[in-house]
Amino acid sequence: MKNKIKAGIIGGSGFTGLELVKILSRHKYVDISFATSRKYKNLSVCEVFPAFNDKKDKKITFIEEAKEGDLEGIDIMFLCLPPFESMEYLKGISGDFSFKVIDLGSDFRLKNPIDYKYWYGTEHIMKGMLSDFIYGLPEINKEKIESSDHVANPGCYPTSILLGLAPLMKNDIDIIDICIDSKSGISGAGRKLKDEYLFTSMDSNFYAYSTIGHRHIGEIEQELENISGKKFKISFTPHLLPVNRGIFTSIYCRVGDSVESNMEEKIYYLFEKFCKDLPFVKFTGTEMPQLKDAVGTNMCLVGFGFDARTGTLKIFSVLDNLLKGAAGQAVQNMNIMMDFEEKEGLDFNGIF
Amino acid sequence: MKNKIKAGIIGGSGFTGLELVKILSRHKYVDISFATSRKYKNLSVCEVFPAFNDKKDKKITFIEEAKEGDLEGIDIMFLCLPPFESMEYLKGISGDFSFKVIDLGSDFRLKNPIDYKYWYGTEHIMKGMLSDFIYGLPEINKEKIESSDHVANPGCYPTSILLGLAPLMKNDIDIIDICIDSKSGISGAGRKLKDEYLFTSMDSNFYAYSTIGHRHIGEIEQELENISGKKFKISFTPHLLPVNRGIFTSIYCRVGDSVESNMEEKIYYLFEKFCKDLPFVKFTGTEMPQLKDAVGTNMCLVGFGFDARTGTLKIFSVLDNLLKGAAGQAVQNMNIMMDFEEKEGLDFNGIF
Amino acid sequence: MKNKIKAGIIGGSGFTGLELVKILSRHKYVDISFATSRKYKNLSVCEVFPAFNDKKDKKITFIEEAKEGDLEGIDIMFLCLPPFESMEYLKGISGDFSFKVIDLGSDFRLKNPIDYKYWYGTEHIMKGMLSDFIYGLPEINKEKIESSDHVANPGCYPTSILLGLAPLMKNDIDIIDICIDSKSGISGAGRKLKDEYLFTSMDSNFYAYSTIGHRHIGEIEQELENISGKKFKISFTPHLLPVNRGIFTSIYCRVGDSVESNMEEKIYYLFEKFCKDLPFVKFTGTEMPQLKDAVGTNMCLVGFGFDARTGTLKIFSVLDNLLKGAAGQAVQNMNIMMDFEEKEGLDFNGIF
Amino acid sequence: MKNKIKAGIIGGSGFTGLELVKILSRHKYVDISFATSRKYKNLSVCEVFPAFNDKKDKKITFIEEAKEGDLEGIDIMFLCLPPFESMEYLKGISGDFSFKVIDLGSDFRLKNPIDYKYWYGTEHIMKGMLSDFIYGLPEINKEKIESSDHVANPGCYPTSILLGLAPLMKNDIDIIDICIDSKSGISGAGRKLKDEYLFTSMDSNFYAYSTIGHRHIGEIEQELENISGKKFKISFTPHLLPVNRGIFTSIYCRVGDSVESNMEEKIYYLFEKFCKDLPFVKFTGTEMPQLKDAVGTNMCLVGFGFDARTGTLKIFSVLDNLLKGAAGQAVQNMNIMMDFEEKEGLDFNGIF
Repeated sequence: MKNKIKAGIIGGSGFTGLELVKILSRHKYVDISFATSRKYKNLSVCEVFPAFNDKKDKKITFIEEAKEGDLEGIDIMFLCLPPFESMEYLKGISGDFSFKVIDLGSDFRLKNPIDYKYWYGTEHIMKGMLSDFIYGLPEINKEKIESSDHVANPGCYPTSILLGLAPLMKNDIDIIDICIDSKSGISGAGRKLKDEYLFTSMDSNFYAYSTIGHRHIGEIEQELENISGKKFKISFTPHLLPVNRGIFTSIYCRVGDSVESNMEEKIYYLFEKFCKDLPFVKFTGTEMPQLKDAVGTNMCLVGFGFDARTGTLKIFSVLDNLLKGAAGQAVQNMNIMMDFEEKEGLDFNGIF
Repeated sequence: MKNKIKAGIIGGSGFTGLELVKILSRHKYVDISFATSRKYKNLSVCEVFPAFNDKKDKKITFIEEAKEGDLEGIDIMFLCLPPFESMEYLKGISGDFSFKVIDLGSDFRLKNPIDYKYWYGTEHIMKGMLSDFIYGLPEINKEKIESSDHVANPGCYPTSILLGLAPLMKNDIDIIDICIDSKSGISGAGRKLKDEYLFTSMDSNFYAYSTIGHRHIGEIEQELENISGKKFKISFTPHLLPVNRGIFTSIYCRVGDSVESNMEEKIYYLFEKFCKDLPFVKFTGTEMPQLKDAVGTNMCLVGFGFDARTGTLKIFSVLDNLLKGAAGQAVQNMNIMMDFEEKEGLDFNGIF
Repeated sequence: MKNKIKAGIIGGSGFTGLELVKILSRHKYVDISFATSRKYKNLSVCEVFPAFNDKKDKKITFIEEAKEGDLEGIDIMFLCLPPFESMEYLKGISGDFSFKVIDLGSDFRLKNPIDYKYWYGTEHIMKGMLSDFIYGLPEINKEKIESSDHVANPGCYPTSILLGLAPLMKNDIDIIDICIDSKSGISGAGRKLKDEYLFTSMDSNFYAYSTIGHRHIGEIEQELENISGKKFKISFTPHLLPVNRGIFTSIYCRVGDSVESNMEEKIYYLFEKFCKDLPFVKFTGTEMPQLKDAVGTNMCLVGFGFDARTGTLKIFSVLDNLLKGAAGQAVQNMNIMMDFEEKEGLDFNGIF
Repeated sequence: MKNKIKAGIIGGSGFTGLELVKILSRHKYVDISFATSRKYKNLSVCEVFPAFNDKKDKKITFIEEAKEGDLEGIDIMFLCLPPFESMEYLKGISGDFSFKVIDLGSDFRLKNPIDYKYWYGTEHIMKGMLSDFIYGLPEINKEKIESSDHVANPGCYPTSILLGLAPLMKNDIDIIDICIDSKSGISGAGRKLKDEYLFTSMDSNFYAYSTIGHRHIGEIEQELENISGKKFKISFTPHLLPVNRGIFTSIYCRVGDSVESNMEEKIYYLFEKFCKDLPFVKFTGTEMPQLKDAVGTNMCLVGFGFDARTGTLKIFSVLDNLLKGAAGQAVQNMNIMMDFEEKEGLDFNGIF
């Protein structure tokens, strides 16, 4: 039996942080040392999650801020902070820590400071650390993650997109004209008190947002290049679904070289090969995955169709934005970094 | 004051037929002579719609079948039937009628019998009548509708797509690579008793369907050619939203000729010009329309964005699939054919 | 043809105010002189309601505040303000106005200042005016409303409850032990930016709130006494439904005198008699009304069941909280006060 | 380490059966020997649940019917069948089996055949076995369940009601005039293909059903008598919520003896005492539990308020109808019968 590790969570008020607290509080090999949250300070997890009922053990209490003493004891730190705040936090404590770090925010995903400035509109304040962070998509970078102390957890949209495209990217198929239409549940927007996120605003509603230049494009193009060796300029348009959780991504693209007669079989084979041994990606063939299949689980489901009339390849992927798209993937990365079984603590039943 | 006309409705059990009964029962210049429905036969509208409360007048009762005597008295017939049934119905009574016809089904939208066979998989049984029916999109064909006795009401998806593309089609802008991602409320699937349409199946769900070769593609490509004089092969993918009503369409395309620096302004101008005098299409500029803005109204709202980085033009349109996408548009067509004010009976408040 | 009247609306930012603007802007006999709103100041109705498309007429613009000159021209004022603000507003302008007033808020519903203080926790600042305001439930007080210049529009819960109980209150049936369980859509909570009203908080959720001492109890007990001449102490518990609009009220009570064998028929007869000529209340007998039947309409639907085993009478009523429960009822009151047809401008189709 | 037991599931097509398959397929001490289902026959769990991804182990395949050989090997049988079918099934195989039985249906909950006939309208066909079945509410009958081979799993409504009332039933408080208003998600109605369960029928809807004489009343009154020694006639009214999962129950009652000044504290104390050591019931005091707190978990949350003005005690309880209200409770019962830890396999995170 393995020893338990100690984990610290910075930023436990948001949806991602809360989901992480939930998962880790029931992870066989993890003790949560602390979770910071202004909103929930001095409350225990049993008060924050009404259905938590542990009377004796796991009396995890949220604290307002992590002191130096808190940091000293931990083996791994999870950062669940808004853009710009992870780098500020790490800068503030830099030099002093010996723990591993998984950043669930967006500060360390882009490797090139110029790209960072282009997509985030400001200079990165810890450029030297950018290359330390491995882009934490285990289905692509598992070996690097295993030996790394710093992981940048991918964005929710990029995870759904990269897992849909990666199987075709390392191969002789030439994918061009990538046009992506993603739809996300509202928890993806975070927990902001805005008129537009009220129930009365979103119930039975649907719309596109950030239609030009969404920040996630940067990491998608970076990773597509890393996988394929080719440069891409993708069109990406996110939409908001009137549901709490889940992302459904529709990827439209073309096959650049002359379309072969057996294109569908070829694509089928490549997906099947890619997904064969992956615990958290399942290929559904030409059966379309549904949002509800993935919600409440750490799975990404991928299906496809090939429209021979127009030469359009259509790939559809679904995942839970708070699990495989955020906290679940972070724990998957932790499992890999800590040499636990990759699925440990992530075997959820789903809700449907 | 105009005289009232008499309308007959064939197929009053489905969502479209019921919506039509509702609208016409409160239309100033219309008396419903009859509405057929196996499901509701012998019930009055006040029994079918619990909130209808007319005690004295408008005692409209659903009948199982329209007899010859019923047909003789009417000025206009609305057909609200599934694919293949409109032509069968008209064939059964052909030769005998003097009323105008608006077909809300799909049998008379395609003008070329070869196209019909390609998209519907069977021979048309009234080929000779195909050219009699005007494609009833008033924003394009108003003059033809005015002088016509037969109108084929457009499909819900095609309405949302054509109103998004038409403004750019008659002009010197060369639109290419059209890739359409539509999302529809579940009433668009009709009132079928299938496991997949249960509340438990669709609540908080979302997925793509008919991903290859949806039948509406035929009428979209036909009308794009009619408007522009050019042939198109479009990629179209419909999805199901967990809402009752409404269609949100995202159209992605490119501008074929060298992209000009003022492309956005140019596109803006064309949309504004097209929508200026239309009662039921509103251009929202680069503000994104939302599904809830259109639901419960006969409006189609259209917005756009131009992504200069990738050269992608993104057009977004929304409408209520049962109103502007079906029964509302049928009444709009009737108003035009009967020389009523185009908005008569269609000035709904919406629900939000 | 009647002359148009001029209406002023104070408080056009909330759900009720907006709904009122919508209805009045399409009312045949009303011109909106102004609507105040800090949120929407300087915007036209066509900007606030994206589906409004009036190009020429009805260019209603929201203003921040109504000046003396604005007030002078109007025939009727609608107050759509939070608790305490209607009396403050009227006090501020008191003495100077000649227009009629309909208060959609809660300040003038209770007639006894002691009751007001009990339920609202503070002294009323215009006690002298309390008796000027008629409790605007037209199904009970139509004659008084006709001849009144001041109407206090009932609360949404009280409307659903009083219309369910009134038919039995004027009669020889002795109703006792009234226990009411109401369920309201979230728009009933107003448009507050609170964590608990976010989509992510309310989607697929349901709960009870204000379980002890909800303020609406005061006006319910007052009106029950007015109708029946008897005093009541009712138990009332409101709940929040994960829907935008609509109230469903379940009323449980007992019949005090010895239960007769034909109790069900007797109750049926009383309901039918009460509802017979009412344009906006429909009795559905022992068929249960559904929330969706009423949403989007100005109707209140009432059904009932009598449980002989336990002697429990169960009455169920539904309405749209923003229409018959607020803005629709206010316009109904206006129609009565102004001698328009009671249904004018209120003949909505509903959304289902 | 305990040995694994073998479980057989009869009726794996419905929501309850599927949920049970999910839970047991991940239970540390259980192997599913078979699950019968006409709908899913010959499919594996990984095909039925798209997010299941076990490649090597747990290759559970649904079979059409359990043969004698299938039954011989099992330690426990779960019956997930509609009313009347459990007793028919057991009668068909009676005499031959040595396994324990948990019936998730309603056939063996009532102990008195006269009650059974009253509530179910037909004679019980295995009267002799009624007393063999323990009413499987572990919070009341844990000791009997431990030593029993036959458990009748309670209904979903009765579980929510009994856990709300039981704490006050064994005591000197005299609870009278019990009036219960329950609201259930649609999965509670089972998986029937009916017009009324379509998404288009239930979205944004709400209504009461089976308002007189719902069958669950029988088992509620039976168990209240078992706990308290007193007879009750309760008023019970179920409603349908537009959500997939979850029951919210509002219990209204009075305290019969003279209301004491410290009634609220007394009730608080009794609830706290009752819930103290229960793994799956949590008392939330005067904080109201919310539906979303319980959905996706095996918890029942109970809160209360005491309205001194009217003498009404209001108790609110929530649970997930498919977990604590059905399959979760069945596994809890199995854990107790098999001497596993009561929480084994039931420690779900919930979805919110």
